[in-house]
Amino acid sequence: MIIIGEKLNSTNKAAKAAIESLDAVFVHDMARKQLDAGASYIDLNAGMFVEGEPEKLEWLVKTAQEAVDAPLSIDSPNPEAIERALKITASKPIINSITLEKERYDSILPLVLEYGTRVIALCMDDSGMPETTEERVAIADKLITGLTAKGIDISDIFIDPMIRPVSTGSHYGTVALETIRSVRTKFPGVHITCGLSNISFGLPARKILNQAFLIAAMTCGLDSAILDPLDKRLMAYIYAAEALLGNDDFCMNYLEKYREGLIDLP
Amino acid sequence: MIIIGEKLNSTNKAAKAAIESLDAVFVHDMARKQLDAGASYIDLNAGMFVEGEPEKLEWLVKTAQEAVDAPLSIDSPNPEAIERALKITASKPIINSITLEKERYDSILPLVLEYGTRVIALCMDDSGMPETTEERVAIADKLITGLTAKGIDISDIFIDPMIRPVSTGSHYGTVALETIRSVRTKFPGVHITCGLSNISFGLPARKILNQAFLIAAMTCGLDSAILDPLDKRLMAYIYAAEALLGNDDFCMNYLEKYREGLIDLP
Repeated sequence: MIIIGEKLNSTNKAAKAAIESLDAVFVHDMARKQLDAGASYIDLNAGMFVEGEPEKLEWLVKTAQEAVDAPLSIDSPNPEAIERALKITASKPIINSITLEKERYDSILPLVLEYGTRVIALCMDDSGMPETTEERVAIADKLITGLTAKGIDISDIFIDPMIRPVSTGSHYGTVALETIRSVRTKFPGVHITCGLSNISFGLPARKILNQAFLIAAMTCGLDSAILDPLDKRLMAYIYAAEALLGNDDFCMNYLEKYREGLIDLP
Repeated sequence: MIIIGEKLNSTNKAAKAAIESLDAVFVHDMARKQLDAGASYIDLNAGMFVEGEPEKLEWLVKTAQEAVDAPLSIDSPNPEAIERALKITASKPIINSITLEKERYDSILPLVLEYGTRVIALCMDDSGMPETTEERVAIADKLITGLTAKGIDISDIFIDPMIRPVSTGSHYGTVALETIRSVRTKFPGVHITCGLSNISFGLPARKILNQAFLIAAMTCGLDSAILDPLDKRLMAYIYAAEALLGNDDFCMNYLEKYREGLIDLP
């Protein structure tokens, strides 16, 4: 699993306050903690600052890199903000995200190419967020075909099925899972990620739903997620699921995590 | 989910001691607790008593029925023991289990027909426990075809893919999951169950693996399991998975269980 740590996102209250007050200690600490907990990427988002997003995002990148050398997920729909961030990123980042919306596609694609980044591609086009599995898979198909035609390696593309909360439609869990399964079958070499916590929006005990959905999605072929790596139980289930899904030879990693006290939680 | 409570099984130390000493209070209590925790069936197994299995199983049935009116799962490969149990069962039981082994098939099938029971059918034949998904699906196919040809309703058949521990082969989780998915696709009307805890045999923190595997298996089409309903966290994940898989309209059951304090555990 390629884990993208979600905690330095300006929609998060504590993160927003830290970005606003340029609290470097908070950013250092949260970047380090997520890396230590198993994140491969640290997501950085300053989108709540409508006015100063480019400056804030640049500061976030610079500040996070003072603490960790993990690659970063540059989380913005704003090409200007993304480019300011890309100019100073140390290791190959991932842009979060491109879509099939014409304006966004045309403005983000050149950045992916110029800076040789990886990219998260959301199953969304100019007609909005698709309703059905078929529409999502069709958009994923166009995104993968279009991006690889431009020379982007399929292993640098992370398809995001766009999860909608089951509280707003009982079928949305199945729609996401079937999209993941279809894309995985059709494009074995692509990565598939998601913003995990969307699934549980509007319901109580969200962690339980997030944990269960992550296992379900991994079963269907998800191999990455934007999530909270500080949720220890969530991480324990990821290690368990990897062992159960045949991605952990002789359960070696599971056993190691068990010995480190990361599986059998109180 | 059709939950078959596994706690009155003579391979369980406490249950074995209770059966040996004819401890009716233990049996009453354990049957009731499992029913209260959400079991639909109470599994009864006296197979560890090689000599007196038929008498012990009969006593178990009689005793369990003093406490609960839930249907029973008569868990034995021994036709004599099964028949003694069936003679006194009050509500339509399930026989656990038939296989495609010729001797077992020929001796169990008449009991299913005569007593009008449901039946768990293990993916196993005279060549032993199959290695691959394809072999399991082929056996499931023969079992379903053969049993329905005898007039057994497909909704009275519970296919068990025969789970082997991932500790003995990293691919066994995937083999079980793919078997479940294939059988579910081919036979939408059949039930699919499994002895859940087999998956984690030989590994530490088994509950975590069992919980994760149950969610994975439900994602592939499992709609029943032989498990410990007293594992509250396992039950919480079942309610969560049902909501996530579109089997719980408006998440009504999930919300009800949440209000009962059964989801957000300490």
